[in-house]
Amino acid sequence: MTDLLVFNVGELVTNDPARDGLLGVVAGGAVAIVDERVAWVGEEIGLPEPYRGLPRLDAGGAAVLPGFVDAHTHLVFAGDRSDEFDRRLRGETYEEILAAGGGIHSTVAATRAAAEDELFDEAAVRAWRMLTNGTTTVEIKSGYGLDLETEARMLRVANRIGRDLPIDVVSTFLGAHVVPLSHRAERDAYVDLICGPMLDACAPLARFCDVFCDEAAFTVAEARRILEAAQRHGLGLRLHADQLGRVGAASLAADLSAASADHLDHATDTDLEELRAAGTAAVLLPAVSFSMRLPYPDGRRIWDSGVTVALATDCNPGTAHVESMPFVVALAALHMGLTTDEAIWAATLGGATSLGLADRGAVVPGSVGDLVLLDAPSRLQIPYRPDADIVAAVAKRGTVL
Amino acid sequence: MTDLLVFNVGELVTNDPARDGLLGVVAGGAVAIVDERVAWVGEEIGLPEPYRGLPRLDAGGAAVLPGFVDAHTHLVFAGDRSDEFDRRLRGETYEEILAAGGGIHSTVAATRAAAEDELFDEAAVRAWRMLTNGTTTVEIKSGYGLDLETEARMLRVANRIGRDLPIDVVSTFLGAHVVPLSHRAERDAYVDLICGPMLDACAPLARFCDVFCDEAAFTVAEARRILEAAQRHGLGLRLHADQLGRVGAASLAADLSAASADHLDHATDTDLEELRAAGTAAVLLPAVSFSMRLPYPDGRRIWDSGVTVALATDCNPGTAHVESMPFVVALAALHMGLTTDEAIWAATLGGATSLGLADRGAVVPGSVGDLVLLDAPSRLQIPYRPDADIVAAVAKRGTVL
Repeated sequence: MTDLLVFNVGELVTNDPARDGLLGVVAGGAVAIVDERVAWVGEEIGLPEPYRGLPRLDAGGAAVLPGFVDAHTHLVFAGDRSDEFDRRLRGETYEEILAAGGGIHSTVAATRAAAEDELFDEAAVRAWRMLTNGTTTVEIKSGYGLDLETEARMLRVANRIGRDLPIDVVSTFLGAHVVPLSHRAERDAYVDLICGPMLDACAPLARFCDVFCDEAAFTVAEARRILEAAQRHGLGLRLHADQLGRVGAASLAADLSAASADHLDHATDTDLEELRAAGTAAVLLPAVSFSMRLPYPDGRRIWDSGVTVALATDCNPGTAHVESMPFVVALAALHMGLTTDEAIWAATLGGATSLGLADRGAVVPGSVGDLVLLDAPSRLQIPYRPDADIVAAVAKRGTVL
Repeated sequence: MTDLLVFNVGELVTNDPARDGLLGVVAGGAVAIVDERVAWVGEEIGLPEPYRGLPRLDAGGAAVLPGFVDAHTHLVFAGDRSDEFDRRLRGETYEEILAAGGGIHSTVAATRAAAEDELFDEAAVRAWRMLTNGTTTVEIKSGYGLDLETEARMLRVANRIGRDLPIDVVSTFLGAHVVPLSHRAERDAYVDLICGPMLDACAPLARFCDVFCDEAAFTVAEARRILEAAQRHGLGLRLHADQLGRVGAASLAADLSAASADHLDHATDTDLEELRAAGTAAVLLPAVSFSMRLPYPDGRRIWDSGVTVALATDCNPGTAHVESMPFVVALAALHMGLTTDEAIWAATLGGATSLGLADRGAVVPGSVGDLVLLDAPSRLQIPYRPDADIVAAVAKRGTVL
């Protein structure tokens, strides 16, 4: 079934700038999907005759949103770090955990040891949970391989998620996630490896290249080398920027016209102005603040700077094992100073914009037929019921899951 | 099916003080339930012959916990205050919302206007969601009627939830939730009404009486009058104590040997010592802090004072529309200074203790056969995956739901 008529929609969020308000909400709306794409949107009373015979889904007065676009995840990994997470809650520092063989390097070891099918099976479970929470497009990064073979394997797994599951995947090469233990004494050799053989092997498997440019990660100079090499391989650019401290990563993202600068906990007004001018989106990740008990990035200030804001889960085994975009929207509205409507926009059209996808994040003729039906008459229930299974149904390219 | 053998349990939380550690965890465990009650608990290898033929549930290596006991909820109400919640997020004060006809009085108006079946249907939906999140016993308060007829109706609905759904209900009369608008100029007359006709009508329908004793609610003197009258009617006592300020409510709860003092955001060390000495449990409600963006009560200090700590959702339409006890456990471990194990204990045996229920909250011979099977091999995943549907299955009195 690639045709679908969703009717009896209490509140339809279109994100159509031609309609009123930030979200272009239509009351008493309907959406017609033909051949996986939105063909018609409007008040149900005006539904054209040709669409009346489509297979029907009665929304029962519920709110309907565009499918969520989760623009920053580390969905593919092996291993379980809940024990380490518990030790952090009990007061152990990340440095102590790293010294005891934990932290990101334990995920790298587990991921390197995992067979490709194993990685796929684990990631597919998480992707299905994302789908049931309304995510219809997900960005997935490599970055737990830190060697050519495993980085390429992670990207193949990410792409297979998009082929085998009803979710669209955008893959990002993140060989520069952290300097691997093997290269601690020879950072330059690792950067060389990335810029040479790893990009040769991984660029064909990815749409973007990302670098963790921060204190204790890659320097601005290293990040620039890697990103410029990635550009030569035809990849778009993303950047883990200024999460732990202000090292100038946001500024670098703007200078390279990156598609996105992510985290931005320490970005200054000047940084934001540079991002805005460059058309670089800000991808904000409140679940990390929640899980790590850190201050939230100032979403209000970032939104007001005029930068395009996206929200994402950052789903990863260390700092935010979070899969639900409604939960992220709730966190942003409750704790980051965005309004509920701004948070919803950032979790849909903002995410799509940051990924350079013009055909989703909105419900307008021509866009992909990805819809989320809430278990609620109003979108305002997303932060009101932060623990709820707020998603009642999901349509992916016109197919009800 | 009232007999059940749960086997292949990776990690069985028994809360049995005769076993090791706070939670008395058994690895490789099994639980035999006969006639709705736990008959045998231990390592599966030692399962006695007579239990081997019981209907079987394979836990598949997952963690199994006692059913959650949610000791403080306002589950029965009508109306939706998500719009008001959104206005608070946008900066309107509760006082402004009250003045515009919102706040608790809008719930009172909607609840008074709702027919008994309507109230039941709405509450039953919420109770089912609680069940799917592992709550097998729930306390439910009245308090949105503030007149004899509606308070009694709310309690009848609460009791019907316990009869018609596979969840055990403990009902609490909270006629003293707030002074109704009709009695603003004659508070004493309302207290007289509670102590006389309302208690006469409601005491037979409830096990406990509760009073909101705080700034802008009932004074300590009023609360004492009401609670002493309730005692004469044979009710146990609970108290909304020192949430908004320190008015001496915790001290009153201790003085009356109340079963619980709830909230306690402003309780002092002296208050806690009095509660401990009186055997009064502290019911903590972190979802209110989360949803209202207030500081969390200091769970660490309260636990260390020696008071029995319980965790509950406070599920209500104004300040915490939260139904999931795993989410509450996550909040307590992440933001209230309890360890994950302490939070789990407080959400099970702590809740049962605060309700005076000796036969649940633990998995020991004789206890009610209420079990929660996690979608995880370890209980440590509850705060690690705070947004997850972490409950895979629930057994209520030996019946798998």
